[in-house]
Amino acid sequence: MFSKHRGMLAAMLCASMGILIGVLVGHLITPSITEEDKKIIMTYQKLIEDKWASETEETQMILDLISTTNLRNNLKELSRKPHLAGTARDDELAMLIKQRFVAAGFDTAELVPYEVLLSYPNHTDPNLITIMDGSKKVVFTSKFKEEVLHEDDNDPDLVVAFNGYSPAGDIMTQPGVGVIYVNYGRVEDFEKLDKLGIDVTGHVVMARYGKIFRGNKLLHAEQRNATGVILFSDPRGVALEGTDPKDVYPNSFWLPGTGMQRGWATTIQGDPLTPGWPSTKHAYRLDESEVPLPKIPCQPIGYDDARAIMEKMGGRAPPVDWVGGMKGIKYNLGPEMLDEYKNYTLRLQTNNFLRSVNVSNVIGTIKGSVEPDRYVLIGNHRDAWGYGAVDPSSGTAQFLETARVFGQLLKKGWRPRRTLVFCSWGAEEYGLVGSTEWVEEHLEKLQARAVLYLNTDTCAAGPILTPSSSPLIWDSLVKLTKMVPGVREGKTIYDEWAAYHRAKNQSSPQLETLGSGSDYAAFAFYGGIPSMELLFRTDKNKYDISKYPFYHTGYDTFYAVDKFIDPGFRIMQGCGRLASLFLKYFGDSALIPYGLQQLSRAIEENLNKVKDNGKGATLLKIYDKFPLLEKSAQNFTTATAIFARKLDSVKDTLDPVTLRAVNDQLMKMEQVFIIPTGLPGRPTVRHAIFAPSQFDSYAAAGFPGISDLLYRIDDLQGEELSKRHKEIRRHISDLTILLQKASGLLEDFNLI
Amino acid sequence: MFSKHRGMLAAMLCASMGILIGVLVGHLITPSITEEDKKIIMTYQKLIEDKWASETEETQMILDLISTTNLRNNLKELSRKPHLAGTARDDELAMLIKQRFVAAGFDTAELVPYEVLLSYPNHTDPNLITIMDGSKKVVFTSKFKEEVLHEDDNDPDLVVAFNGYSPAGDIMTQPGVGVIYVNYGRVEDFEKLDKLGIDVTGHVVMARYGKIFRGNKLLHAEQRNATGVILFSDPRGVALEGTDPKDVYPNSFWLPGTGMQRGWATTIQGDPLTPGWPSTKHAYRLDESEVPLPKIPCQPIGYDDARAIMEKMGGRAPPVDWVGGMKGIKYNLGPEMLDEYKNYTLRLQTNNFLRSVNVSNVIGTIKGSVEPDRYVLIGNHRDAWGYGAVDPSSGTAQFLETARVFGQLLKKGWRPRRTLVFCSWGAEEYGLVGSTEWVEEHLEKLQARAVLYLNTDTCAAGPILTPSSSPLIWDSLVKLTKMVPGVREGKTIYDEWAAYHRAKNQSSPQLETLGSGSDYAAFAFYGGIPSMELLFRTDKNKYDISKYPFYHTGYDTFYAVDKFIDPGFRIMQGCGRLASLFLKYFGDSALIPYGLQQLSRAIEENLNKVKDNGKGATLLKIYDKFPLLEKSAQNFTTATAIFARKLDSVKDTLDPVTLRAVNDQLMKMEQVFIIPTGLPGRPTVRHAIFAPSQFDSYAAAGFPGISDLLYRIDDLQGEELSKRHKEIRRHISDLTILLQKASGLLEDFNLI
Repeated sequence: MFSKHRGMLAAMLCASMGILIGVLVGHLITPSITEEDKKIIMTYQKLIEDKWASETEETQMILDLISTTNLRNNLKELSRKPHLAGTARDDELAMLIKQRFVAAGFDTAELVPYEVLLSYPNHTDPNLITIMDGSKKVVFTSKFKEEVLHEDDNDPDLVVAFNGYSPAGDIMTQPGVGVIYVNYGRVEDFEKLDKLGIDVTGHVVMARYGKIFRGNKLLHAEQRNATGVILFSDPRGVALEGTDPKDVYPNSFWLPGTGMQRGWATTIQGDPLTPGWPSTKHAYRLDESEVPLPKIPCQPIGYDDARAIMEKMGGRAPPVDWVGGMKGIKYNLGPEMLDEYKNYTLRLQTNNFLRSVNVSNVIGTIKGSVEPDRYVLIGNHRDAWGYGAVDPSSGTAQFLETARVFGQLLKKGWRPRRTLVFCSWGAEEYGLVGSTEWVEEHLEKLQARAVLYLNTDTCAAGPILTPSSSPLIWDSLVKLTKMVPGVREGKTIYDEWAAYHRAKNQSSPQLETLGSGSDYAAFAFYGGIPSMELLFRTDKNKYDISKYPFYHTGYDTFYAVDKFIDPGFRIMQGCGRLASLFLKYFGDSALIPYGLQQLSRAIEENLNKVKDNGKGATLLKIYDKFPLLEKSAQNFTTATAIFARKLDSVKDTLDPVTLRAVNDQLMKMEQVFIIPTGLPGRPTVRHAIFAPSQFDSYAAAGFPGISDLLYRIDDLQGEELSKRHKEIRRHISDLTILLQKASGLLEDFNLI
Repeated sequence: MFSKHRGMLAAMLCASMGILIGVLVGHLITPSITEEDKKIIMTYQKLIEDKWASETEETQMILDLISTTNLRNNLKELSRKPHLAGTARDDELAMLIKQRFVAAGFDTAELVPYEVLLSYPNHTDPNLITIMDGSKKVVFTSKFKEEVLHEDDNDPDLVVAFNGYSPAGDIMTQPGVGVIYVNYGRVEDFEKLDKLGIDVTGHVVMARYGKIFRGNKLLHAEQRNATGVILFSDPRGVALEGTDPKDVYPNSFWLPGTGMQRGWATTIQGDPLTPGWPSTKHAYRLDESEVPLPKIPCQPIGYDDARAIMEKMGGRAPPVDWVGGMKGIKYNLGPEMLDEYKNYTLRLQTNNFLRSVNVSNVIGTIKGSVEPDRYVLIGNHRDAWGYGAVDPSSGTAQFLETARVFGQLLKKGWRPRRTLVFCSWGAEEYGLVGSTEWVEEHLEKLQARAVLYLNTDTCAAGPILTPSSSPLIWDSLVKLTKMVPGVREGKTIYDEWAAYHRAKNQSSPQLETLGSGSDYAAFAFYGGIPSMELLFRTDKNKYDISKYPFYHTGYDTFYAVDKFIDPGFRIMQGCGRLASLFLKYFGDSALIPYGLQQLSRAIEENLNKVKDNGKGATLLKIYDKFPLLEKSAQNFTTATAIFARKLDSVKDTLDPVTLRAVNDQLMKMEQVFIIPTGLPGRPTVRHAIFAPSQFDSYAAAGFPGISDLLYRIDDLQGEELSKRHKEIRRHISDLTILLQKASGLLEDFNLI
């Protein structure tokens, strides 16, 4: 479409340059074009121009401009000091980011503060686990900070180890009693203990990190009446090549024995005191007593300390797969200590406190030239548990470089079709606080105007692209990764991504929906805004670990990134290039490039997954109209196919208003799955189809309401069971209607 | 804007007609205009054209075409037979309406059925109230149908008197015990009885119609443990010039003694079995036992029967203002009968039953030429308790004539800018069922696309225009009523409307917000769609009555309308002209003609009303941040003023996409006040500012959440009071944030 108009413009230009004879001869009866006509034609062309298709030069500029030197410098400054949310250094970085937006020539750049409830440890009286012998002599004291091993990890302001929102507490065990080892603290782990006759009531439990979100570990322990929780990093997840100093940081990217994973430990997202509403200055707050914050203390430790505790524990041997990577000791379940420690006691002391703090998001915008009220957003959180070189500063380094590059384009006169919004989030590490409050404040606007929310939290934890997103984004992910050079010469990111999956015997790169755990949650699961998370992670073909080893510890330093994770900064460069292309692709394409058919395909696939393991038969038994849900999903697939075909045939001839109308229609396709009152029992999770299940906040799940309602249904009887059956019937009916609505949005259309 | 372009077109036309010399001489260096240029210019002009401003001829056509003859013929056919929801005649009328849409040349016309739970009486065993003497001999039996008084009211299919959704029941009083008279059945009436030491527990109560919605009367009685309810029409409300046959129908428009007001008597809206979700064929339904339907029988009677009961009642005399218009008897409160009836008993028998019924809406559309995905909707319900000549067929007659006239325009090649949607609702009389289910099914679409919902239920119950609407519509109401001739020669509807208010010593016509009671409820209060109700009612300066006398009785006949209410059909003609102009004005104006500043003004005014009677001081005492709410309202007023000024300066130069963007922004201004989970304790009423209060469904109220939370707060103590205080603080905070959001939608705009 564009080239056609460009040709016409060229003809006009020739004519005005004096080649008039032919025009005059050939068009004697044609009226001449007036200045006003010209203005109309130019405006019209601008309104329908596909800037993505027409501006290949600018696209190449973006790829060229993202600089590894700048990324390295950015990261160095960002991770120079610890920058926990609510501290002075976090505020400094907020100012720095704002200044970068201003320097880049953004149209707006502002700090947006919220007053939120955060949680801190006591630095003069840090959290401790101690073991005393029969004479009350302390024979073991846990570390509260990592041992200093390199100049990059020696800042005195590093926060002492703690879990956010776990309360102050002081638990002392009976003589000869220690902890109960609960493996990962999953539901199935506690059930295994039940079968073994081990009751955690009244005991401190000790769980290794991994498999599920730490907040759920604490919750499960609390639900089973434990009195305290100790979380530790298992060498099997963080030190796969040995725990000797030569095998770990600063000599490798593996975690030393004093590395402690901090992290928030509730399942609440956003400011706990203002659920569903923004924590603006004067907003009403719940009393702290009304909020389901954890009631029992929880403390993270390194594997050195974990070993010191575990080696003293007696009781039964755990199931064989519960044995982790701590060498030279025998794992026992407890709670009793070994005979030689029969008069010993264990004490868990935490001194955490809650505090209302002003935390700022930094919001910068580049105003769109044609549709300033349509937003393509990119977000990254700023706060870190320590130096945060990987999490989140690898993302922040990229975010700042992306902002700079768009500033360069602005300076040469370019503007996107739609408005680009850059969001530096505060207090993500406390439960996605900054982004959640902002979405709560701007929900109506975002639902009406947001085209894409692109999240980059940790950008580079390793070399492997592991994106997750709304299925609407999948097609563009394939398209754009093919345009960006990979780390290896001559390869694209797509090539490397595909090679990784080929090595796992997968025929093509895996496209995944969003799990929980970062700032896209409020956008995607509360607002229904198509969202994406860009992440390069550890190579699982090499090391089967779920997080990079330094995650949330005091060793997540510039040195570690520069030396081990992304030397040369090519991964971060790829991340920045990809993020920038996403902004330009969704910001400049005339027609919003959602992959509508991927959405319906993913819905059908996820529904099939829900039916796996005999659950389909169960659902059919509970509700004989369950097949209607499948039918609705199939109908939606048909509707998307018909729509795509129709759209394809007319998309080059749409007038500007119809173009916008079609985009409006597309922008509702994910929001239609939002249930205003939320999923059953979950008012803040409202996406009926793609949202994490309730019982493991890290996992992605299709149809989370069904999974949640089927969860442990076999344990129910009588009244409870019949109530649950009703809920299931109702929810399946609701889902069926939502899918019919989605088809309806496409079918009764009349636009094209 | 348009005239400018029209001028340009004219110039082009001249040029192509051969006046070429000047053009060639004057514009030698101008390139010529190509066919493609022309197409672009034409399209562009179409996209920005203000069809309302440019098509004055079509506007006049509308005024000319609405025909009193057609209106009369329509009404005659519509009210020829009773057409209760779910009966064959209602289905016939649905088909008739569909055929009219087809005949008019609408782009679509379809029946949209829902399977819903309705309620019916037993025709072979109708509901009765009887009084028996000591020997069980029946000395009084209530009427179950109106006495036939005219050929227009003699159809055997007229439904026997009952109240929808009140259950079957058979209540027999003790000897000498009758009913307790409870005045209007309001909360304050029951409180008055409390003060008088009269407890309704275990008794049948008798209430006159009026003041509040009948569903609330029944609810109040049930909450106070009454065993049954008798509702009657007070002559003071329905027969103001005497109850002799000569003074009432068929000799006047006053109600005869056997006229019985039927009507639904729950506070549920929409199908009771599918709250919040559409009753599509396969939707999951609640069990009837789960729904809060009335538990005690309720039956309406005429004033002849009411007198026969009341004259037998003993007990204390009622407060003087409880005495109604039944002459020649002494009003007593009961429950005991007068001494002469001391062995008499009273029996209330109802045989109502619930039934799932297919009820259809009829939806017809005229597709918009520029923005087919923007809807201007008009709705009218079709079902009636009897012949329904006034309610709703005066509205239906107008609705059909409006459809016909737009068909005439279509046939001469005209099309509106936006899509017009004509909705004939089913089962309004059972709790706004058809419209509620349809809004529930299409909520997301309507919230994204609907510009205006115009409701015409009863169109002509009398000569006085009494509109109510979102404040966004008020300006257009004044503008359009000035364009439509009134009933009197040389007067406009505006003149007559203003004259009525002048007679009440009001300086200008009263602009009111929506109360509850008709099909706009789901649009306005659940969806936040700007809505309006058009209604001409009885002249209150002449007769102080709240409803027209035949309301919901068997005398609401064609004869009554033709003879007394709208002879000549000039009122209905005015209604049709006004409705049609509204459709054209909102369907054709380039910029949606909302009166944004009326919205902010109404918010401030209503907030002031909330503060009346010392409530402001109470609120301040409960929440010291209450003034922030006032401040937010003032800020919103400022924001609307600035916006209006800016818009005014640029509105003639907007390009088509910016024009649409500004309209998009305006379309969110009311929706932003929707709280997704509803007002405190009211999941289906979600409009935080303009919605009826919970305790009187007929009344309009600003800030209903505050009113509801303050209601009877003085009765609370301790824990309950402190809980209520918290709810109030939270709700005030929520309202403050909503108003800030509203300002934010205007302020951070960047479009203009």
